[in-house]
Amino acid sequence: MPGKRTTRLTPDQRRAQLVGIGLEMLADRSLDELSTDEVARRAGISRGLLFHYFDSKRDFYRAVVRAECDRFTAATEPDGSLEPVAWMRAFIAGFVAYVLEHRQTYLALVRGAAGSHPAIEDIIGETRETIARRLRDGQRRLGMPDAPRLELASRAWMAFAEEAVTTWPESDDAAREELCAFIEASFVSLLGLLDRPEALGARRP
Amino acid sequence: MPGKRTTRLTPDQRRAQLVGIGLEMLADRSLDELSTDEVARRAGISRGLLFHYFDSKRDFYRAVVRAECDRFTAATEPDGSLEPVAWMRAFIAGFVAYVLEHRQTYLALVRGAAGSHPAIEDIIGETRETIARRLRDGQRRLGMPDAPRLELASRAWMAFAEEAVTTWPESDDAAREELCAFIEASFVSLLGLLDRPEALGARRP
Repeated sequence: MPGKRTTRLTPDQRRAQLVGIGLEMLADRSLDELSTDEVARRAGISRGLLFHYFDSKRDFYRAVVRAECDRFTAATEPDGSLEPVAWMRAFIAGFVAYVLEHRQTYLALVRGAAGSHPAIEDIIGETRETIARRLRDGQRRLGMPDAPRLELASRAWMAFAEEAVTTWPESDDAAREELCAFIEASFVSLLGLLDRPEALGARRP
Repeated sequence: MPGKRTTRLTPDQRRAQLVGIGLEMLADRSLDELSTDEVARRAGISRGLLFHYFDSKRDFYRAVVRAECDRFTAATEPDGSLEPVAWMRAFIAGFVAYVLEHRQTYLALVRGAAGSHPAIEDIIGETRETIARRLRDGQRRLGMPDAPRLELASRAWMAFAEEAVTTWPESDDAAREELCAFIEASFVSLLGLLDRPEALGARRP
């Protein structure tokens, strides 16, 4: 690049820089629209050099998606020393804050694209599994019994929470508090149905 | 096609036949995997003839998706003369039955693909809007007040119901009854939260 000094970075730093640029760009476009040419240009390196650090476009995409998913799981991990109710609230608040701040990325990656990007399906699947385990952990902390439909109801509740957060129109602090309270209440209310046999149809004794 | 007599169909019959074949094939593959060559082969006509009835692949895809969405909205339209509670139950039972029977198609079209198939995004959007209107209609019939968060809560509840039905493991009649009861109970329970200010955070008086 004539007239431009290339900063010397270690390979790890360079990889982190390129992934960081990818993450930033993903905030307003889909994975398909993430151009490696543009990433290289923003980093001030050649496209060829980018492929010195990543084997392929697919490999680069996977690194970006992995980083995004790590950011998501870190944002939803409460302090392990909290009391059960506070722990569950911290989990919900972390989830709400992350999705509000990374709405586009969340929709593009964690939700819609699972079926359409086979290259990243396993990473998305693992991430969902981590969140599901965390939710089960919270339920155990709260002393919720392991009802036959608990896992299914929990997945459905996560879908509820996702939809509520991604369609929530406001983002000021009071509105965020209201949203968290709504999602908390829905958690108690929906999973509480599992203890009421009459809510679960004629099949139960 | 040597040795095979081509049945004479009117243009409308032929179009309906081709769309029907497309619908059938969509049950076990995504829209991207729906080959017009294969559709023509199954209909016993040439690919060229298929494009006599449809302007383009996109046009054919749109006709298939439109037909599927019509099937879906018809399946979830209760008899207008029913009492409010029976009406709502019929809506839920229709939704559950449709999604259980067309799980793959539902996942591929109505849910995941909205972002990834620009060619059909408007049809999916209209369909979701029809279902949302139907849900609001049911809520009015039940005398539910038009709470500020009702629309948002309803969308989130639909996501909950979708996830519950698509991940429901069994399909015998007793299990289906249990699933319907669970979804009904969740409807009452979630939308009931809207009447409880304490469930909606510190913002309310």
